[in-house]
Amino acid sequence: MPHKSEPAIIAIFGATGDLAHRMVLPALYEIEQAGELPKGTIILGIDRIGGMNDESFRTNAHDAIQAHSDGGDTKLANWCAKHLFYQGMDTSSASDFEALRKRLEELERAQKLPGNRLFYLAVPPVAFGPTIEALGTSGLNKSTGWTRLVIEKPFGHDLASSMELNALAQKHFREDQIYRIDHFLGKETVQNLLAFRFGNTLFESVWNRDKIEKVEIVVAEQLGVEDRAGYYEKAGALRDMVQNHLTQLLALTAMEVPSAFHADDIRYEKVKVLRSIAPIKEHDVLMGQYMRGEIDGEGVVAYQQERGVAPDSKTETFVELKLSVESWRWHGVPFYLRTGKRLKERVSEIIVTFKCPPVSIFKPYKECELAPNVLIIQLQPNEGFRVSLQVKKPGAQISLQTEWMHFSYADAFGSLPDAYHTLLRDVLQGDQTLFVSADETLASWRLYTPVLERQHRIHPYAAGSWGPGASS
Amino acid sequence: MPHKSEPAIIAIFGATGDLAHRMVLPALYEIEQAGELPKGTIILGIDRIGGMNDESFRTNAHDAIQAHSDGGDTKLANWCAKHLFYQGMDTSSASDFEALRKRLEELERAQKLPGNRLFYLAVPPVAFGPTIEALGTSGLNKSTGWTRLVIEKPFGHDLASSMELNALAQKHFREDQIYRIDHFLGKETVQNLLAFRFGNTLFESVWNRDKIEKVEIVVAEQLGVEDRAGYYEKAGALRDMVQNHLTQLLALTAMEVPSAFHADDIRYEKVKVLRSIAPIKEHDVLMGQYMRGEIDGEGVVAYQQERGVAPDSKTETFVELKLSVESWRWHGVPFYLRTGKRLKERVSEIIVTFKCPPVSIFKPYKECELAPNVLIIQLQPNEGFRVSLQVKKPGAQISLQTEWMHFSYADAFGSLPDAYHTLLRDVLQGDQTLFVSADETLASWRLYTPVLERQHRIHPYAAGSWGPGASS
Repeated sequence: MPHKSEPAIIAIFGATGDLAHRMVLPALYEIEQAGELPKGTIILGIDRIGGMNDESFRTNAHDAIQAHSDGGDTKLANWCAKHLFYQGMDTSSASDFEALRKRLEELERAQKLPGNRLFYLAVPPVAFGPTIEALGTSGLNKSTGWTRLVIEKPFGHDLASSMELNALAQKHFREDQIYRIDHFLGKETVQNLLAFRFGNTLFESVWNRDKIEKVEIVVAEQLGVEDRAGYYEKAGALRDMVQNHLTQLLALTAMEVPSAFHADDIRYEKVKVLRSIAPIKEHDVLMGQYMRGEIDGEGVVAYQQERGVAPDSKTETFVELKLSVESWRWHGVPFYLRTGKRLKERVSEIIVTFKCPPVSIFKPYKECELAPNVLIIQLQPNEGFRVSLQVKKPGAQISLQTEWMHFSYADAFGSLPDAYHTLLRDVLQGDQTLFVSADETLASWRLYTPVLERQHRIHPYAAGSWGPGASS
Repeated sequence: MPHKSEPAIIAIFGATGDLAHRMVLPALYEIEQAGELPKGTIILGIDRIGGMNDESFRTNAHDAIQAHSDGGDTKLANWCAKHLFYQGMDTSSASDFEALRKRLEELERAQKLPGNRLFYLAVPPVAFGPTIEALGTSGLNKSTGWTRLVIEKPFGHDLASSMELNALAQKHFREDQIYRIDHFLGKETVQNLLAFRFGNTLFESVWNRDKIEKVEIVVAEQLGVEDRAGYYEKAGALRDMVQNHLTQLLALTAMEVPSAFHADDIRYEKVKVLRSIAPIKEHDVLMGQYMRGEIDGEGVVAYQQERGVAPDSKTETFVELKLSVESWRWHGVPFYLRTGKRLKERVSEIIVTFKCPPVSIFKPYKECELAPNVLIIQLQPNEGFRVSLQVKKPGAQISLQTEWMHFSYADAFGSLPDAYHTLLRDVLQGDQTLFVSADETLASWRLYTPVLERQHRIHPYAAGSWGPGASS
């Protein structure tokens, strides 16, 4: 069903932080510019520093939006002036939450708002629990309109901590109020995966163990750890990328046809996929860490030489997993998940390799080895997909050659909306389709926690390579 | 198996006629230029006019090749001077055939040729029988090397006449000596149909009644009857185009996987398709004749006003048939064959429409009617193929849009060899894969003769339209 948006207060915890500046505020302004922000919606920026007022926060937010989006004219300044407000508070103080509640009510009266509230936790993971707890105990989990809570990953760092976080959130909010963001799900190409699969007989007909040889899900980064060593040293590639992003892509690629394009139906099918993945065996895991090397011709240091990284760090910056989805549809088809930092290129793609024809009728001809059909769905850069086909080379002999057919989103539709734009619009519309359910986070951690608890050999790889010798 | 070419004499009956000038001689020179004409091969031009000698025939052929191909330099002149010879003869005279035999033997001695002979009948249909008979009775159906006979369509004008012609040819030549040309089979795109179908799991997996809604085979011409009224008045579109070209395309589209890419295997499967087509019912035939109209903005006259056409002519210049291939693979899938003169565009294509997804999970969304996937294999102009897919339009609502993926032969391979080039090379190599077997001609005439024997209403259509109201 199309969802309807009503005006709301968007209360952002951590509104002067990096995530709010880079993603949340620019996305909200993009939504406004697209005419998709319900008229009357206002933003209340919250931080713990407390050194601002409405006026200075507007300037602060204006500059951030200007730096991270196309905005920056007087329209932006006007919008900030009318729609942005500020509240400094100590998030460990019950009385400050009481003050927050009063401020919200006051703003709702002044702006004639129906009491819809969106709490966006753009704060470090350590603040998730206390903030959710305080929102609950101060009664801010209900209002005269709807109340929604947005959390960013990580949703815990293993099964136990994720169960704890989910339990806490669900103690104070219903699951249908909780929006867990995995920004990969906001990408148009990822959403299109469902349209692609369930709108095209041509592909859904062959989307199974009879016709597919293997599936590879690859998220390759050129960047190193940058300034995130403090977090990354404890996380590693499996927690940082596989448990969430790659696993979401796997779920969308492997899921059964849902009964309808609704949040509940789709999330149910995704959980079902995750639950049918067999426990991951030790030899199906390959971990690596980047050594020094070259990226695009420039020398870069080894992971252990990065600022904030222990010189004997065993954190994996590369991981490849071979997963078995033990369902009727997928039994026997390996799913490879592969991600790493400091790899040769930046590319995210889903590669579906079909089986070769069972018999080659071209056998007698020398140049006629049959290559399989391959479908590559590229998520970034250059969103689109391509299919390889075998065609006859013109000339005397029957000789086949692989040729590709391409589809590019940019060619067809111009620029695509940013993932945060899509996701925040959906939160405002109350559509949970593109958000991660509690069950999904638990199923995912249940799968990967045993892997994280094992010791793995960390294979070195040169920065700028494709990682340690691939296992596939 | 790759075939080997040995030097031969190519004896062309009708060597100064239109077909030889436009197609056969230019194609032979193309083969020479591609380095595919076996060294030492010579051409003996034969005609009934008899007013030439080797020298004047060389000039005559040179000018024809120059006019119909890229050739025309001294290389061409040299080639003609060394490889072209002439023999005038009365094809109803036994002694002239005796003289022909002597000339062939003499040339073979002089040029040190092993006795391979190719007789190309580039003559009007009425001369097919007598020439074949004379070749047989004069013993020219055998030699010290191989002997091959090339015939051009029409292979009869109904079942009886085609049985007669086949019986005569097979009285004097073995079937493996007889090469019946349907130049559509020489087109790279048509050959690629087999590579496409049997080299790609993606398509062969869905190439059946479960996944395909309908198949359309369209050969649309912009030309009118031109200067062929004498022939066309008696033939009509069904004989001229459907019985041969469109039926060959149908056979290649619908055939089962042959056991190998060999002439016998492929021809067997094609006959099997033709034999499994159900008798054509009267209401599955739509015939039309063009009235005056406009082609590309220029006024053109009605068929009945064309030079040589009876003012009350009932000859069909358009025909559409709905055929049922009663096999396990195709039961219930209609095959539409459609061809006509003076239609809106010149295009030959095979359109495969897949079934829509059985259930749309997108139903609740307004703009989400599911369109089927369509594969269009375009034979001319712009050889290539394209596939339509449903993709998600970027934006808030799940709304699907049809987009096309393209493959163009010209982009991938540059210009393609001419059909006659391909076919004549194959005759020299003794490869019958791309030629029509006797069984195929009979199966085809068996299917269409009852249609030809019925009276049909001839529906008028304006030149420049797509024909009378389509029945599909």
